[in-house]
Amino acid sequence: MITTKESLESNLDDLRPNSGRVYVRGTRYPDMRVPMREIALSPTKSISGRVEANDPVRVYDCSGPWGDPDFAGDVAQGLPPLRREWILRRGDVAAYEAARSPLRASAGHPVTQLWYARQGIITPEMEFIAIRENMGREATMDFVENKTGDRRTLNQQHPGQPWGAAIPKEITAEFVRDEVARGRAIIPANVNHPELEPMIIGRNFLVKINANIGNSAIASTIEEEVEKMRWATLWGADTVMDLSTGKNIHATREWILRNSPVPIGTVPIYQALEKVGGKAEELAWEIYRDTLIEQCEQGVDYFTVHAGVLLRYIPLTARRATGIVSRGGSIMAKWCLAHHKESFLYTRWDDICDIMAAYDVSFSIGDGLRPGSIADANDEAQFAELKTQGELTRRAWQRGVQVMNEGPGHIPMHMIQENMEKQLEWCDEAPFYTLGPLTTDIAPGYDHITSAIGAAMIGWYGTAMLCYVTPKEHLGLPNKKDVKDGVIAYKIAAHAADLAKGHPGAQYRDNALSKARFEFRWNDQFNLSLDPQTAREFHDETLPQEGAKTAHFCSMCGPHFCSMKITEDVRKYAAEQGLRAEEALEKGMEERAREFADKGSELYAKA
Amino acid sequence: MITTKESLESNLDDLRPNSGRVYVRGTRYPDMRVPMREIALSPTKSISGRVEANDPVRVYDCSGPWGDPDFAGDVAQGLPPLRREWILRRGDVAAYEAARSPLRASAGHPVTQLWYARQGIITPEMEFIAIRENMGREATMDFVENKTGDRRTLNQQHPGQPWGAAIPKEITAEFVRDEVARGRAIIPANVNHPELEPMIIGRNFLVKINANIGNSAIASTIEEEVEKMRWATLWGADTVMDLSTGKNIHATREWILRNSPVPIGTVPIYQALEKVGGKAEELAWEIYRDTLIEQCEQGVDYFTVHAGVLLRYIPLTARRATGIVSRGGSIMAKWCLAHHKESFLYTRWDDICDIMAAYDVSFSIGDGLRPGSIADANDEAQFAELKTQGELTRRAWQRGVQVMNEGPGHIPMHMIQENMEKQLEWCDEAPFYTLGPLTTDIAPGYDHITSAIGAAMIGWYGTAMLCYVTPKEHLGLPNKKDVKDGVIAYKIAAHAADLAKGHPGAQYRDNALSKARFEFRWNDQFNLSLDPQTAREFHDETLPQEGAKTAHFCSMCGPHFCSMKITEDVRKYAAEQGLRAEEALEKGMEERAREFADKGSELYAKA
Repeated sequence: MITTKESLESNLDDLRPNSGRVYVRGTRYPDMRVPMREIALSPTKSISGRVEANDPVRVYDCSGPWGDPDFAGDVAQGLPPLRREWILRRGDVAAYEAARSPLRASAGHPVTQLWYARQGIITPEMEFIAIRENMGREATMDFVENKTGDRRTLNQQHPGQPWGAAIPKEITAEFVRDEVARGRAIIPANVNHPELEPMIIGRNFLVKINANIGNSAIASTIEEEVEKMRWATLWGADTVMDLSTGKNIHATREWILRNSPVPIGTVPIYQALEKVGGKAEELAWEIYRDTLIEQCEQGVDYFTVHAGVLLRYIPLTARRATGIVSRGGSIMAKWCLAHHKESFLYTRWDDICDIMAAYDVSFSIGDGLRPGSIADANDEAQFAELKTQGELTRRAWQRGVQVMNEGPGHIPMHMIQENMEKQLEWCDEAPFYTLGPLTTDIAPGYDHITSAIGAAMIGWYGTAMLCYVTPKEHLGLPNKKDVKDGVIAYKIAAHAADLAKGHPGAQYRDNALSKARFEFRWNDQFNLSLDPQTAREFHDETLPQEGAKTAHFCSMCGPHFCSMKITEDVRKYAAEQGLRAEEALEKGMEERAREFADKGSELYAKA
Repeated sequence: MITTKESLESNLDDLRPNSGRVYVRGTRYPDMRVPMREIALSPTKSISGRVEANDPVRVYDCSGPWGDPDFAGDVAQGLPPLRREWILRRGDVAAYEAARSPLRASAGHPVTQLWYARQGIITPEMEFIAIRENMGREATMDFVENKTGDRRTLNQQHPGQPWGAAIPKEITAEFVRDEVARGRAIIPANVNHPELEPMIIGRNFLVKINANIGNSAIASTIEEEVEKMRWATLWGADTVMDLSTGKNIHATREWILRNSPVPIGTVPIYQALEKVGGKAEELAWEIYRDTLIEQCEQGVDYFTVHAGVLLRYIPLTARRATGIVSRGGSIMAKWCLAHHKESFLYTRWDDICDIMAAYDVSFSIGDGLRPGSIADANDEAQFAELKTQGELTRRAWQRGVQVMNEGPGHIPMHMIQENMEKQLEWCDEAPFYTLGPLTTDIAPGYDHITSAIGAAMIGWYGTAMLCYVTPKEHLGLPNKKDVKDGVIAYKIAAHAADLAKGHPGAQYRDNALSKARFEFRWNDQFNLSLDPQTAREFHDETLPQEGAKTAHFCSMCGPHFCSMKITEDVRKYAAEQGLRAEEALEKGMEERAREFADKGSELYAKA
């Protein structure tokens, strides 16, 4: 049974109440339509009866056409090829003989966004991203600042930060180009994945999150994995990695790619290993190369390649508490030990680069020796590999290929910053992409939380993308609930990091939600949250009546006792006097005290 | 209906499998028995067939006699008065006329742990705490170090940290005394709460967590609240605050106190407000004073007193996004505005101190002006109050009363450290006790996660106790599941902070769990975790067969593909050679490669 469009979208209204899809047109490329989600708000009703409209709030949306209620597609058809015209218009790719007539470079140069950026070319992908990253800043940031009368931003409160993010007030297409040219950001976008809505990974942009899916030898089906991909992007996954290891790897990936509006990453060594019956020592360059090309042709947007696991680093793991825990790292370690040779991923690096440059597949240079426990954090094996990741980064850049670097893993809080600093230095500011890190080992079943702590911190320090961890980490394969829980924990971490970095496009959503909360606009509070349905359900457990959602008190305090109600009085008092608060206190407090007593000490007249 | 012992303890075996209660005897006070939980482990079985026992792991246990399977108590009877003899032996308290003949000071000096500490007296409470805080260090820390052969500790890797925690390798009773005398730690322990098992709150000890319970005007019953208290301590709450605001405040508190092995905190102004029909402006010193005494006599261990909300600070909140969100702060603001007078909590501070000194009730000086949104973080109102908290701290110390300070709230990550630094400076290193902080406002329904991020960080920076936040925060009253989710998220945060502080009694549990994970001792991995039942259920969803719990692979990778299996080979190789890993590589790799090929390239002989 194939999952149909209806399986997910039929309940879009429940999952994202009172919100709709809007598109913003490009200027350089006017046929471009950049999708956003817009949440409508109810008006503010003040005690005095004054009614004031609240502008809608626009938020970044990863769900693609599947999140557009007007889209009438079907997973059996796949998504429309949004980028196909953009790619063909560049005139540097040609179709060639293969099952699907895939495209590849034909003009003697890389067809990567890095190559275009270096030529000074602003691609449609770059403009798309600039519009997308500015989300809400025109429409909503100003509104919040005006309505609260408070023009502070976090940026202004805390100018600069030790890790040197330099986020402009407005993201321009030229800024996108410049960051990509510098290697500080990547746009994973294979010419054979035209369905993709372009996004960017770099520390001067919104922090992104990745969700891992993929069937294994033990469980799960293609349909489930496609559904998990759509489900993950609905909740906000910016990219998805297909880590399938069982049968049907090729077919699973094909279904996922044709239906995915976000970049898809893979670890090609997994499929290569299937081709040799699971025996690592039988792997060879030719098998791996053919696997890379097969996946390039399908449209995979980034490859994890564990080329930093060098023969001489492997014994450094012997005295570890938990040895080598990366699958890719283990496979390559086994191969190196069996052959007593340097890894072919390392010796064939330039060849790998040339393949990837012809399709614009980005590197995610793997961290095969990442620590698998707190005891192994920041050890010699881990940092030896990180240095080699830096060398490989520079070599890939020379051949025009986009690069990010993978990072740990299990790291206690006080050792996280060192990871970021070494990566920035050794890998020349290529984007960092970390798994958590988990800040303790003692909570299997809750590792979305142990790792959200580390992820938020390293995101603040400058990590560009956070690979999610689900509650099933270390225990089993995530189901749909686990995928959702993992994505939401990581949206929290990424957003907390954006706030801490002072990203100008971050705090408006917090402000809008807090304003709704303060004004007892319960439905707006729910709808602005990361998971409206859950917020509403939690509220309704205590106060299920619909009237309670407009009441000026909540279940924690009861009608007599509302702290927010009292605060309104403080504010009203200051406002009535038309004076700054400090002066107000001086001039009117006694008068006010009398007034209180006269009115029977009720703060507000009965309605 | 009264909750019975059985409602909780009948399934202790399911909740804490393969673990039992042990008691450690005191040395100064040999009749003292300090409770701990001991988790038994299965032996390590190496590939070669060698079997090696794993010592049991002892963990800190907050559940009191309720967590002892041999205890045959009943909530209708309450817990045995563990401390009664200790208190009477000091000869400085006397019973007096009142319903229960409560004790209070009778010798003309405070009966606080602070007073004894300053006299150089090591109380039984102090020795109890020293034994408790050393948990696992003799029994388990050494074992882990020996077994892995890795003697590094986090302390040694990262000596010192900017916030100046100075945790000794072994906690002595004298160290406890000294920290209490200095005001850097408190032992909340009312002479009328003899059921309490002493614990300490200070940044040179394990980070503690508090769980809030309490019925409201809207919902919940006494029985539910008693059950929530026992449930919270079972999962690890170090203290519990009873924030009841509805009817039956006194009776609810009585039930909770008589059954609680952990310190109980309250906000007495809530009950005072009930006595004046919910009208803040009718509050008066006499009503408040009588409420304090009533609660002192019952045995409440610490009081939140919002005495730092001064009249002149209130207008500073007028231009905030979310005004005053603390209930206690709002009540006092309303009173101050209505009377245009300074808060009686402030003007009567010395009187309050003298009452609390006579029962040894500790202050938790409230932060009534804490920010209720990211937009209001670290503003003038908040910090003005914090400075006054410092003044009040010094005055309480002069009168022999133990003090901690409450802190925020809603704070983005980059503004957290400033809170800790100012509190240490302005409040002379009195323990800090924060609510989260929440690092973003956009995830109602998941605020245990938004706040666990901030809690872990501020715990690392030096906060001594973290007030939990449940998923219901901002939405409704927590039920049992919410209490558990909140406590576990905060145990994670506290433990992550202990690791980052380099607490010598923290990492042994991570190491033991990671060793179990690495050796595929699935049941040990579950049993060592914060929530064994959930870990086991998650595992069993994918691989329910009992055999899978001893299998050398897991569902994520399948039998062909196990990274840990491959790592074992790396280690085995190095061990067989009896050489350090680096030398092993040089001398034997080629020989090994041949051996591999000869054996058909299977890493392990078939069993």
